[in-house]
Order: sequence, then structure tokens, then C-alpha cells
Amino acid sequence: MKATATAPANIAFIKYWGRKDHKLFLPLTTTNSMNLSACTAETVIEFGVSGGDTITITDNTGNSKEINNVPGEKDGMLYTTLDRVRQRTGVSDYAQVTSKLSFPMGAGIASSAAGMAAFVAAAYAAAGDMDTVNDREELSREIRLSGSVSAARSSHDGFTEHLYGETHEKAYTVQIAPAEHWDLVDLVAVLSPEEKKISSALGHSLADSSPFMQARLDYLNGKPELARQAILDKDFASLALLSEIDTINMHAVMMTSRPPAFYLSPASIDIMKNVISWREDQGLNVFYTFDAGPNPHVITTAAEAESVRKLLEKHSEVQFVLENHPADGVRITSHG
Amino acid sequence: MKATATAPANIAFIKYWGRKDHKLFLPLTTTNSMNLSACTAETVIEFGVSGGDTITITDNTGNSKEINNVPGEKDGMLYTTLDRVRQRTGVSDYAQVTSKLSFPMGAGIASSAAGMAAFVAAAYAAAGDMDTVNDREELSREIRLSGSVSAARSSHDGFTEHLYGETHEKAYTVQIAPAEHWDLVDLVAVLSPEEKKISSALGHSLADSSPFMQARLDYLNGKPELARQAILDKDFASLALLSEIDTINMHAVMMTSRPPAFYLSPASIDIMKNVISWREDQGLNVFYTFDAGPNPHVITTAAEAESVRKLLEKHSEVQFVLENHPADGVRITSHG
Repeated sequence: MKATATAPANIAFIKYWGRKDHKLFLPLTTTNSMNLSACTAETVIEFGVSGGDTITITDNTGNSKEINNVPGEKDGMLYTTLDRVRQRTGVSDYAQVTSKLSFPMGAGIASSAAGMAAFVAAAYAAAGDMDTVNDREELSREIRLSGSVSAARSSHDGFTEHLYGETHEKAYTVQIAPAEHWDLVDLVAVLSPEEKKISSALGHSLADSSPFMQARLDYLNGKPELARQAILDKDFASLALLSEIDTINMHAVMMTSRPPAFYLSPASIDIMKNVISWREDQGLNVFYTFDAGPNPHVITTAAEAESVRKLLEKHSEVQFVLENHPADGVRITSHG
Repeated sequence: MKATATAPANIAFIKYWGRKDHKLFLPLTTTNSMNLSACTAETVIEFGVSGGDTITITDNTGNSKEINNVPGEKDGMLYTTLDRVRQRTGVSDYAQVTSKLSFPMGAGIASSAAGMAAFVAAAYAAAGDMDTVNDREELSREIRLSGSVSAARSSHDGFTEHLYGETHEKAYTVQIAPAEHWDLVDLVAVLSPEEKKISSALGHSLADSSPFMQARLDYLNGKPELARQAILDKDFASLALLSEIDTINMHAVMMTSRPPAFYLSPASIDIMKNVISWREDQGLNVFYTFDAGPNPHVITTAAEAESVRKLLEKHSEVQFVLENHPADGVRITSHG
């Protein structure tokens, strides 16, 4: 009744914002991404404890927090997920959950994607339901139901795609290519943390209030397929163009919702402009993308990663840089 | 054959971006604005000189530049305008033009709006066509034809509106209210100048390449009328909401055009977030708006202008603040 799972966060090239269904967490578009080697979570779940479920998250700097069960808040989804696992597997025991991040909490890195993916896999493994763990498409559906499409993309190895689907059954993750397919590097430039005034969860529910939401969806038609092909062809320039347009389109929707969600900070804009200059003026293979937060993800090739990393580290607002290579998806590392 | 005209720049609350007709400079929407007391141009035009047209612009710091006649460039429009004035008035002489700005050139303040309005009025007055000068609607059409809808709004006093029209005849400026109607203050926070990679003129022609352009136009339906009513009612909160949404929508269109036009700088974003905090956390009557450039225009009331000005001047990236009150439009100050 005990299992350990690891899972990476990932960075999306074609992103999702807004949902078709807020209960099933069905996104409005197919999205694709690359798993991140340096942003992982390791989660241990043991059923059979007494007194109630407990969930603790620690990070690589020694910070830790207890996750309380507050219904309606994102953290509360972890408890909802435990209930769902118990319901599906017939286990009735309480669980003790400990999750350890390979990177600092609260730095604006998508910890939930790594954490949720490892959490769901470990929970099903600990409950003895290896069928769900081994069926990666089904596992991706279960991870999505825990509240995060981003996490659901970490169900498969390397470069992955979460398919648009109108029902729970039809919305799941597939692999585009394994990690060794393409030696892209994602340098996450971690900025001084700012208070996130609009959580991603709230932001998704506000997306429809932007006058540009439908235009974004119209624009997206065919774009995930182009990004998939760029990944398969290792076509850096095409992926760069698609991704930069996509992330700015998404942020344009965010900042025009009511209330507006401004996730980009002054330093985000500065680094974005630097990246354009490094590419256009210095000829580096480099592009930027932003999730729902201020930290630039600067994508480059393995050959140029060291040069770009040095450029990023020179920036006064960059606290540190996390260097990520394509990584495998979720794994059960210990069981029983 | 000599005349002097003065005209103010203005700040738009509902802005225009993109054009229905790039030759007639017909905008895609009605827009409205307030004339700016501290951002003016004084232009002297004398017909009857020999050797060719000459145009010189100086500013309040002593900088000056000769405007060369380069067809297709915005400055070249001044020569095109002289030709049009000669054609309409029967004057055949060359003109000597000197224009003096009340504010620094190259600081990202919309010098062309003030300069173009004064230029067109002075040219018609110097050519003896006072009918065109005194018919302010017709004057606004002529100013628009010189290349700037923004300039055309300075044809009338105080708070003005350039009406959407499908033909040259139907697109002209009217007054919403005189300058003394409402003691709004526009504090222009002038930042360190950045090279403007996409000129406004080029930007207008790129607007249609944004996937959000049509959605912006759909959104705008009815908004100029609401902004007009907010001005008439002196309803600060409504004007603030309409204007902030409008400027961010416009910048979302700009940054999603191909190529993207990123006019906002890191400091623009920082001050934008400060302004929101001054309003929401400190209760000040204040909102931001941005033209096609990085300088925040921070709109407030006369009662709070001094407090807001001090807050802006504390910002390390603000070079200086220009304090503007509602102003009259174009005037002929000397004639004959």
C-alpha cells in the first residue's frame, strides 16, 4: 500500500488557456510540450495510516508546507483526487503523502504540473491499481481530472501532446517523440517572485471574458499540428515562431480579461526583448515562452545553451537559471 | 502670405489602430481625446520664398532638425501637404516652415499630432484660405489627410472626437466639451527613449495581421459613445475602466501583429502596475493609457495631480513628468 513516483514539469509550445469544461478540466485546444529534466517532483504515498489524509510538500531548499483540505482551492484538489482513487480502487484507508520538489517552491515554476502527475501515479500504484498506471493514456486522463492539463502532459516521455477532446474519454495525452529525439534546452530564468494576483485556476475561468478569446481559438486552428510537425522535423525556426506568437496571444487574452491578468513583469518584457535581439542581431537559436507567470522560459539548442545561460545570468533581475533538457515522463520508482 | 498657428497634442481615451483606408487615413473607429496644454507646437509658414520648400523643427531644449522630402516616409507627408494646400488655394510659391515644440523631440511624446495640426492650419492661413481654417470640421479633414487622425482631433477645443466615417467627407472631428468642462490632468511620465523598431505609420499597416484585429473592432462597438458620455458626465471611474481596457486591447493587437510591435517597455509595465495599486490600494483617482510608445500617460484629477506627480517622479526610470491640463485646439496667432 505504498508507492513512490517521480514526474517532470513541462513547458508548452502551444498553450492552453480557458477551458471547455471546468469540472472535467477539458482544454479548448490541443497543446504540446517538452518535459523538463530539472523541474521534477518525487511523491511517496502510503495508504493505511490512521486519523486522516496528510499531504506535505518539501523543496530542495528545505522549505516545506502542509497542504490543507480546503474545498474549492487548488490544493484541495489533492484530497479530491485521493477520494477518487479510493472510489475507483476500493481502497478505504487514509493516505500519508510526501512530495519533494527538485526546485524551490514559490519561485513561479510550475510545481503543480510535476507534483500532480507524480501524485496521481503514486496514488494508483499505492492502491494497487497498476492497470491505470501502465495505461498512460488513461493515467493522463486521471491526472487531468486532478485539475491540471499541464500535469497530464507529463504522463508520457519526451515531447508530448494533450489532445483536444469533447469528452473525458477523448481528451488524453500522446507522445510526439522521445526525449532523445531532439536536444532542445529550456533555460528557466527565475525572477524575483511577485505576488500572483490572479491564480492560474481563476485565470482559466476568466478567459472567456476577454474579447479576444474566440479569436485566439480561431487562430489556433491547425497550430498544434504545425508545432507537432516542427518538433518531429527538429525545425527550430518554425517552433520558435509558433511558440512566440502563441505565448503572446495567450498573454494578450490574459491581460484583456476582466479583471485583467497581467502575469508578465517588467523584467519579463526586458528579457523577451533581449531574446529577440540575441536571435535577430547575434544569430543565436533562441526563443522565449511564458506560462501564466513572469519567468521567461528561454528555449535554445544544446550547442548554444551555455552562451544563452551566461547572457541570462548577467541580467540583474534573474535570481538563477534552471537548465532543462528533454526528460522522461512519470515513473513509478518504488512500489510495495 | 505668412501665418503662425499653435496646436496641442492630445491623449486618446478610445484609440485607433489600423486604418480602413491608408491613403485617406480613415480610421476604423470613432476615437476621442483630450487636448494637452503642455505639449504644443507653434508653426510659422511663409509662402513666397525662393529655391524650394524648407521645413525646420526645433524644440524647447534647442534641438533642431531639417525635414527632408523623402516620399513614402512620414516626414515627407509635410511636403505632400504643402502641395495639396497649393493645389486647393492656387498659391504656387515655395514655403518656408519653422515649427517649435514646447517639449523635447525624440522623447516619445506625440509631437506629430501637435505639429501636423499647427502645420495644416498655418499653411491654409498663409495661403489666404481662412474658410478652411475657420470651418473646423473641414480643417480636421485636411489635418487627417496630412497623415494623422490623432492630429485631426486637435482641430477643436478641449475634449474632442474624431468620427468614424466611410468616406473622407464623413470622417471629421467634433467637440465633446470645452477645456474648462472637466479639470482632468494627464501626467506624461517620460521614460528613457528606446529605439522605436516599428514606427506608428508601419504599425497601422500591420494591424490587420493580428488575429485579434477584428475582435478588437467588434469589442469597440459602442465604446466611443460610452467614453463620450463618461466625459460629459465627468465620470472618472467609467472613463478609467474604458480607457485602460482600450489601451491594453490596442497593445494586444500591436504585439500580436506580424512582425509584432512591442511598444511597451519594462518600465511601462512597472508603472502600469503601480497605477493600478495607487488606485486600488491607496484610493487615488488615477488610470493609465499608452499610445504607440512606452511613455505612460497617467490621468488623474486636478486635486490629486500633485500627489500622483510625486509618485511618478520617484520612479527611477522616469526622466521627467509633463503635466497637462485640458487645452484649446488649433489657433491662428498671427496672420499676414
